[in-house]
Amino acid sequence: MTTAPDTPWQHRYRTPSDTARAANPVIDALLDHRSVRRYLTTPLPENTLATLVAAAQSASSSSNLQAWSVLAVQDPPRKARLSAIASDQEHIRQAPLFLVWLADFSRAQRIADTRAIELQAPAYLDSLLLGSIDAALAAQNAVVAAESLGLGTVYIGALRNNVQAVIDELQLPPLVFPVFGLCVGYPDPQAPAAIKPRLGQDVVLHHETYQVDDAEPQRIAAYEQVAADFSREQGQVSGKWGEQVVQRLRDKGSLHGREILAEVLRKQGLGLY
Amino acid sequence: MTTAPDTPWQHRYRTPSDTARAANPVIDALLDHRSVRRYLTTPLPENTLATLVAAAQSASSSSNLQAWSVLAVQDPPRKARLSAIASDQEHIRQAPLFLVWLADFSRAQRIADTRAIELQAPAYLDSLLLGSIDAALAAQNAVVAAESLGLGTVYIGALRNNVQAVIDELQLPPLVFPVFGLCVGYPDPQAPAAIKPRLGQDVVLHHETYQVDDAEPQRIAAYEQVAADFSREQGQVSGKWGEQVVQRLRDKGSLHGREILAEVLRKQGLGLY
Repeated sequence: MTTAPDTPWQHRYRTPSDTARAANPVIDALLDHRSVRRYLTTPLPENTLATLVAAAQSASSSSNLQAWSVLAVQDPPRKARLSAIASDQEHIRQAPLFLVWLADFSRAQRIADTRAIELQAPAYLDSLLLGSIDAALAAQNAVVAAESLGLGTVYIGALRNNVQAVIDELQLPPLVFPVFGLCVGYPDPQAPAAIKPRLGQDVVLHHETYQVDDAEPQRIAAYEQVAADFSREQGQVSGKWGEQVVQRLRDKGSLHGREILAEVLRKQGLGLY
Repeated sequence: MTTAPDTPWQHRYRTPSDTARAANPVIDALLDHRSVRRYLTTPLPENTLATLVAAAQSASSSSNLQAWSVLAVQDPPRKARLSAIASDQEHIRQAPLFLVWLADFSRAQRIADTRAIELQAPAYLDSLLLGSIDAALAAQNAVVAAESLGLGTVYIGALRNNVQAVIDELQLPPLVFPVFGLCVGYPDPQAPAAIKPRLGQDVVLHHETYQVDDAEPQRIAAYEQVAADFSREQGQVSGKWGEQVVQRLRDKGSLHGREILAEVLRKQGLGLY
């Protein structure tokens, strides 16, 4: 780096070049995303939730099954209990709105109940994926909408550290799976979030078939340097990115409770086969 | 309906009211989404792919693992073969760009290889979900970016009808899973796509805990009327929405090949436990 990054693209890739892309306000906004972990307690305008849900429902849905739901948590004690489940993340308590995105086949089963049919497909892995993917597409639209309103967000995958506790807390019926949470609130201007650099496009993008380039190790090493620079700028001490990846995926213990997810989901009637 | 829908919100919910939401150009664009199944063969500008990938990489990534990749298919014979795998969908052949979104733990394993470590976590269900969710968040950002450039898209979940054939065609190594495809191209103005109506917000949105309202059957019936009106406007004949949902999820046979997904993924080293 000879010059400080300026545009979102330069922040994202830590490259001085920002000429390789099309630009418009929507794309600029997408590239400018940052996860927000410090919130003001300022309440949200009354129409915010309806707006986010409309954006979410406007995302594609596999076969129009609409096999997802969203649960809005605003009650402070409940947010605190969910925070305790999710590694005690303070921002779940801070943010005025916590959305839990649900893969939901219970609605379909209620429809089938009126025909005295027990649905077989939800017990298959593909259905679990279908509902989770549809929930993710919906949630990402909500994120883009929230950011366009000056709000910040952060996904909370750590709800999956103890899915049974989430199911109990939110009274989720069979065939419903809490995929992840999402904090929504006004970012605390005292603790601005930064754009996190990512791997170069030549590492994640393949053409026609999946081929591993001989230069991959050097490209990853270059990213590790960028990621280390970013951590230092943020006042954080962290190991190399590759080391973090290996530690996070190394063994059963690194799953922090998620190693029993399949078992919990089977009890929910999901993902067996 | 006493008046024809006008705004994207009115199209999405088939309600005359469009006052319950915040509005700005980004939200208007999100609500205006439609899946495009008829494309011009017009090539895409050279910087389009880089722009879509940058938008995708700007989405959140669980623990910054970046456990996904994307594969760009532009070769017509390969698109034709992928179309044949995915229920012969003509738009895969038509669209100049077909993106296959991959949950990818093989990159992490290559990093671990340099330390002589075999990663254990990818064999657990949570990892399969994590990679699939991250790929979905990324893909949805690419969709929003594409639409802002006047392009159309449609997700292709039917790649999962025969995941082994996709793995073979794209030469995917172990620990890589093709989550879904995405067609990208200029919409054919001769066959404009419409905004598909969705369930009312009161059906998919829960507050604090998951409670099924006694009015759910009436709300679903109201949606079935809206969906039937929409189908008729599109010149399509279709059964009730609830009936479609039940047929799509009824039994193993309705999975169209996806019933063996878990088995194929186990061979890929994913999603066992």
